[in-house]
Amino acid sequence: MASTDLRGRDFITLMEFDREEIETILDTAFDLKRKLIRGEPHKLLDGKTLFMLFYNTSLRTRNSFEVGMQQLGGHAIFLQPGAVYTPALPGEEIAYTTERVSDVARVLSEMGHGIAIRIYGAKTGWMYGKGNLLIREFARWARIPVINMEDDMYHPCQALADLMVMIEKLGELRGKKFVMSWAYSGSVEKPLAVPQSAIIAASFFGMDITLAHPKGFDLDPNVLNFVEKNVKRYGGSFRVVHDMDEAFKDADVVYPKSWTVQPTDGSGPMDPEKAKELFEANKHWITTKEKMELTNGAIYMHCLPADRGMEVTDEVIDGPNSVVFEEAGNRLHAQKGLLALIL
Amino acid sequence: MASTDLRGRDFITLMEFDREEIETILDTAFDLKRKLIRGEPHKLLDGKTLFMLFYNTSLRTRNSFEVGMQQLGGHAIFLQPGAVYTPALPGEEIAYTTERVSDVARVLSEMGHGIAIRIYGAKTGWMYGKGNLLIREFARWARIPVINMEDDMYHPCQALADLMVMIEKLGELRGKKFVMSWAYSGSVEKPLAVPQSAIIAASFFGMDITLAHPKGFDLDPNVLNFVEKNVKRYGGSFRVVHDMDEAFKDADVVYPKSWTVQPTDGSGPMDPEKAKELFEANKHWITTKEKMELTNGAIYMHCLPADRGMEVTDEVIDGPNSVVFEEAGNRLHAQKGLLALIL
Amino acid sequence: MASTDLRGRDFITLMEFDREEIETILDTAFDLKRKLIRGEPHKLLDGKTLFMLFYNTSLRTRNSFEVGMQQLGGHAIFLQPGAVYTPALPGEEIAYTTERVSDVARVLSEMGHGIAIRIYGAKTGWMYGKGNLLIREFARWARIPVINMEDDMYHPCQALADLMVMIEKLGELRGKKFVMSWAYSGSVEKPLAVPQSAIIAASFFGMDITLAHPKGFDLDPNVLNFVEKNVKRYGGSFRVVHDMDEAFKDADVVYPKSWTVQPTDGSGPMDPEKAKELFEANKHWITTKEKMELTNGAIYMHCLPADRGMEVTDEVIDGPNSVVFEEAGNRLHAQKGLLALIL
Repeated sequence: MASTDLRGRDFITLMEFDREEIETILDTAFDLKRKLIRGEPHKLLDGKTLFMLFYNTSLRTRNSFEVGMQQLGGHAIFLQPGAVYTPALPGEEIAYTTERVSDVARVLSEMGHGIAIRIYGAKTGWMYGKGNLLIREFARWARIPVINMEDDMYHPCQALADLMVMIEKLGELRGKKFVMSWAYSGSVEKPLAVPQSAIIAASFFGMDITLAHPKGFDLDPNVLNFVEKNVKRYGGSFRVVHDMDEAFKDADVVYPKSWTVQPTDGSGPMDPEKAKELFEANKHWITTKEKMELTNGAIYMHCLPADRGMEVTDEVIDGPNSVVFEEAGNRLHAQKGLLALIL
Repeated sequence: MASTDLRGRDFITLMEFDREEIETILDTAFDLKRKLIRGEPHKLLDGKTLFMLFYNTSLRTRNSFEVGMQQLGGHAIFLQPGAVYTPALPGEEIAYTTERVSDVARVLSEMGHGIAIRIYGAKTGWMYGKGNLLIREFARWARIPVINMEDDMYHPCQALADLMVMIEKLGELRGKKFVMSWAYSGSVEKPLAVPQSAIIAASFFGMDITLAHPKGFDLDPNVLNFVEKNVKRYGGSFRVVHDMDEAFKDADVVYPKSWTVQPTDGSGPMDPEKAKELFEANKHWITTKEKMELTNGAIYMHCLPADRGMEVTDEVIDGPNSVVFEEAGNRLHAQKGLLALIL
Repeated sequence: MASTDLRGRDFITLMEFDREEIETILDTAFDLKRKLIRGEPHKLLDGKTLFMLFYNTSLRTRNSFEVGMQQLGGHAIFLQPGAVYTPALPGEEIAYTTERVSDVARVLSEMGHGIAIRIYGAKTGWMYGKGNLLIREFARWARIPVINMEDDMYHPCQALADLMVMIEKLGELRGKKFVMSWAYSGSVEKPLAVPQSAIIAASFFGMDITLAHPKGFDLDPNVLNFVEKNVKRYGGSFRVVHDMDEAFKDADVVYPKSWTVQPTDGSGPMDPEKAKELFEANKHWITTKEKMELTNGAIYMHCLPADRGMEVTDEVIDGPNSVVFEEAGNRLHAQKGLLALIL
């Protein structure tokens, strides 16, 4: 457990935390989960408010944050850019329609205790990193913690829930084989946030990490470099393969999920036609019962929503190895652990 | 009072309950209403969450559920399909836009204590029964109670409030003359849920039920059969007439409300042009002071919103016999009774 | 402090209150602000509900009311006309789309403890006074207090926060020079509510009020008459000038903000082309560091959102004399004072 007080910290990516700090969050999450199930009071954030700003659609994230704040004795407010003046960066402002991020951040800092933001994809013109930039601009100006509810680079709250379900199912993570794999979808509108945050998270805990994807679906090299360095620091290993079967062999965890093809070097936005072409050439990247049989009885993970019949067969996602609903449920507990510590 | 524990039960139609169970809900509702007025604490659902999924517009239903959960110490979350991934049935899924009902239901079951759903009309393509099907699909997969906040067949929460206001105004319902009548509206977008649930509700309490409508506005034969059987079981009587004046004669309660013309046998969707034609031929089905004078000093009921000048004159709905605002207020109390028992 | 009990009063414009009543609200606001900072419990509205009906966009108003109700132990519900049946005046009703204001007001009165409404601009067809009319129609029918969250005439909640920040920065307001000035914006969609409510508020407290605007930007003569009479009653002075520099000279407070050109006599709606022409002829009405140097070290106020580079330079709004974020923060405290007294 970290001796560091996390109160006041932003939560934008796990890369800005060390393992003991992440363990402290997970430890708090498990403790609050236990308290909830036993009916023990845990109103640690009585009277506190979290502002949730959703540029994108959400089921799990919105409800887990709103329920979590409520169970902690506080309150979460659901804000949509259309219903407030849309927060905008300097140079992208429109009179009477937008409001500069610096102003929104400072106003909300006067009224509540945390700001959580989701922004990616079409809301950023598919320019990789622009969502993250907006969140960091909020963090720069806010006097209260800023939480990343998924941007175009990271989804650290999902990663916390992913770690929880792996710990619940596998116990000690050290030495376990974790496979983050690409999967086919009928939609190319899939940010890189989940796979990038999943391998980042696994790299803190000594796992043997395999990243699998067809050629052309590379993740951000900065993330890959971080993961490589982190497994040197904390143990475990990291490799990239381009064959789903090869990746699945002997795996303890498979996490097959679609992500798009997009430049991560700022050279331009995602090209939907080029992406579509590469997607359609890789329709066989679907998780089936046969593929699951290559594994070491692996648990099947997915952040949801899953594109059934494309990313995965019903048989697998509804089958005995699937932990997707417990994983989703852990969003609630993971974020309660986080909120209780930083707000 | 029923000795049955209602905890965990779905609430989709009153047809799945018996009279003693309905009486238990009403009894709890009256008790919580009394407690509220007297300022007695009644936080029976401390820390519990109700998810409210509204495909359609709502004033009374949304606010009564949200206020009710709050007064019971819990919290209700207002969800709109556009802001979550729209829950969809198998075969109607679109990658990145929808999420299968089975998944949404199981995810929400991990995070809260009840799921309430409103879906009818255009949101179901006006295919009778499709809204109810979606709610039943939620109930099939959810581990927590599912509540019907109005679908294309039933509106049982409205029916509970209707029963409450009748009991408050008439005392014993046995032997009272209850008239559910069609009324004209400028819009044909009117589901059958309210009239069907109103006659179902009345049939548990020994009332003499008259259903009145112009030819062509038939309700679902399964509902009519249920009502016929139920008045045999619980007393009272049931008849259908095609004349508003005949129906109003000597009535103790009139409930004149528009509903559409639509096949209830699955043969196809509502035909708006055909419906419009039948509506326009029956503009005289409006509740006026003259029609009210045919009754036995009847109370005037309506679920609201009312189409003034079409369904009813201002003079009647704002007049001394109108109980529509108390009826609307009882939505709060009725649903608190329900929630306190099933969640 | 007023000996009057304010419980049950509507809050539509400060013109319907006297100074002692306004002082009582401010006194309560300061007391609750102190309690919040010290962590002293102040759940004065336990279990009470405020309905917030927003026809227009909002950041500060929505969040300050929602957080405020929560901190007082109650709950605020965020309603948008599209998601309820849009409340409409007689003669403007559409079957199945709108619901008459009288009905909405009476239904909500059955379920909660206050109704707060924001409506102006495009939502009123830019017919001056129509938003206020709708709010007064709500007040006429509601059995619970109605609060103006900004209409096309008044924004009294903003005015309370404005008074608070002036008192915090200047101490005694008597004899202080208050300048309400027009400012340029790239958008003409700017109601008169803020400047009108600001000069009304200042006129209760003995301030020397200067209203500054280019010719053609006149405010409502009824408001000007009220201010003139009020300074006779409570002390202070009132003048109108047409030169920004002249107004700023020796000022203790400047409040430069854009508003539109529009008939206030009911002769017709705002004409956007005519307004645009007058706006573009007055681009020099921007608050700069040079203009601030004309003042007596004045504080710079703005209700936000500000159109940066049009109404004001970044240097001023982000500079040492700017109190805009504390002013915004006082929205929370001012409204808590109000709610605690009237709900």
